[in-house]
Amino acid sequence: MKKLEIVSSHPRATSLRTREKLTSYLKDGIVARAGLIAHGRGEAFDYLLGEKTTAPALKAINAAAATILLANDPVISVNGNVAALVAKEVVALSNLTSLKIEVNLFHRSLNRELAIRQLLKTFGAKKVLGVGKSASEQIREVSSQRQDVDPRGIAESDVVLIPLEDGDRTERLRAMNKIVIAFDLNPLSRTAQYASITIVDNVIRALPALIEEVRRLKKKDPKELQQIVFNFDNQKILAETITLINQRLSKIAEKGTYLPDLKCKTKLRFGDKKLEGEMIEK
Amino acid sequence: MKKLEIVSSHPRATSLRTREKLTSYLKDGIVARAGLIAHGRGEAFDYLLGEKTTAPALKAINAAAATILLANDPVISVNGNVAALVAKEVVALSNLTSLKIEVNLFHRSLNRELAIRQLLKTFGAKKVLGVGKSASEQIREVSSQRQDVDPRGIAESDVVLIPLEDGDRTERLRAMNKIVIAFDLNPLSRTAQYASITIVDNVIRALPALIEEVRRLKKKDPKELQQIVFNFDNQKILAETITLINQRLSKIAEKGTYLPDLKCKTKLRFGDKKLEGEMIEK
Repeated sequence: MKKLEIVSSHPRATSLRTREKLTSYLKDGIVARAGLIAHGRGEAFDYLLGEKTTAPALKAINAAAATILLANDPVISVNGNVAALVAKEVVALSNLTSLKIEVNLFHRSLNRELAIRQLLKTFGAKKVLGVGKSASEQIREVSSQRQDVDPRGIAESDVVLIPLEDGDRTERLRAMNKIVIAFDLNPLSRTAQYASITIVDNVIRALPALIEEVRRLKKKDPKELQQIVFNFDNQKILAETITLINQRLSKIAEKGTYLPDLKCKTKLRFGDKKLEGEMIEK
Repeated sequence: MKKLEIVSSHPRATSLRTREKLTSYLKDGIVARAGLIAHGRGEAFDYLLGEKTTAPALKAINAAAATILLANDPVISVNGNVAALVAKEVVALSNLTSLKIEVNLFHRSLNRELAIRQLLKTFGAKKVLGVGKSASEQIREVSSQRQDVDPRGIAESDVVLIPLEDGDRTERLRAMNKIVIAFDLNPLSRTAQYASITIVDNVIRALPALIEEVRRLKKKDPKELQQIVFNFDNQKILAETITLINQRLSKIAEKGTYLPDLKCKTKLRFGDKKLEGEMIEK
């Protein structure tokens, strides 16, 4: 298969480059095949959101930054897609705060864990939890291998950041009374619905934005940060996000199309059968 | 990586099995890595549609069946995902009508083409066009390798079925005055918007439904089939489909959640920092 060249002028250059990045990490074993499918689901919702960080997402990023700064023991859960797309940003956020980094995979294998740790170290990570035998604790009632967590990381944390997580575990982490900050482009997913703070945005935009927000809020008084967190209403954020998608769709739903109005009667001729007539189409 | 066992009772068993099928064909080279991402996009829209064949999709399937039966030279364009998911159904539809089968790939390689032809032959395909040098004609203004078509197939056809196609080529096929029947779960994609008949449904449901409809309409008078085609309004079908998604989202948008109303003030305690207080969350 030929590698496609992506020109910067292409209207979908960012999206295509992100795909290239993910598929290239499939070879290294960092990204799982199912991770590519999950990425596609995200792409669809990103498309519906207009592929930009929305106003409700910015509010969630603001609350997430305050929460991380207030937390005693925050940790970020890194899977294959997160490592492939934003390893550098994960490390930057970790170096800026007390955020620990833990590898946690749905499709676990020691080789994948080691490859992901190596990638994070390349970007300057000092310590990476959850690799191999160090993921020695199990979260109950999670049926996948995502149940295996590090006693020094997710197990003892008060705040868990879960970019690109599966619903089962989000629900369990919440039941364990942890504050869960999720990144999920689908506002209807169980992860989005169960999280304490849901950032409905693409991680490639949201994580840099979160780093900026942490930098800004670092100078603030803890009481001020506390107010941000206590005033945050995740259900309202989700409602606003779904409404945004709805408004976009409503405009198109009226006519069924966003194309110029080409509706006309077109001559239709079926070869030899000479069944000529007219068909209503664009 | 461990292979996951999918139990039939799992609420998402069909979706998980479809994923397994696709990823297993990645190894054979039939499915491209980008095909997995594309499948994920489809999954997201299928989820928004309620993962069932909708009323507007049934109308499109009805018109598609009539069109195929009236066509002089219909052809179906088969890519990696189509082969992996519905090779058997493609062959069944072809054997039932005058539908030709042509392999056409975005990521073209002779090995992939041969593997796909082999798979189609396994299911009883007599002739498979578009493999290797036989794809000797080029559709103008298509920037990908999907430009290469078989002079005996897509090039000379009057009706082209394109399950899981890219927008560029759909637009060009329409400009060449071909009747284009698309299968696309995203009613907003350029393929969905430019096609003559858009079946907004999962191919794993739509193709068996189309086969049934062809069987039923085969007994009808051509004049009756003609009426079905001429009365079909694709723009209306797209509008109805987008409205269905919108209605589903509207219900959830009101509250922001489909979870039971657990909204409450939860005690929030940030470890040592003893920043106790209350947070509005589910």
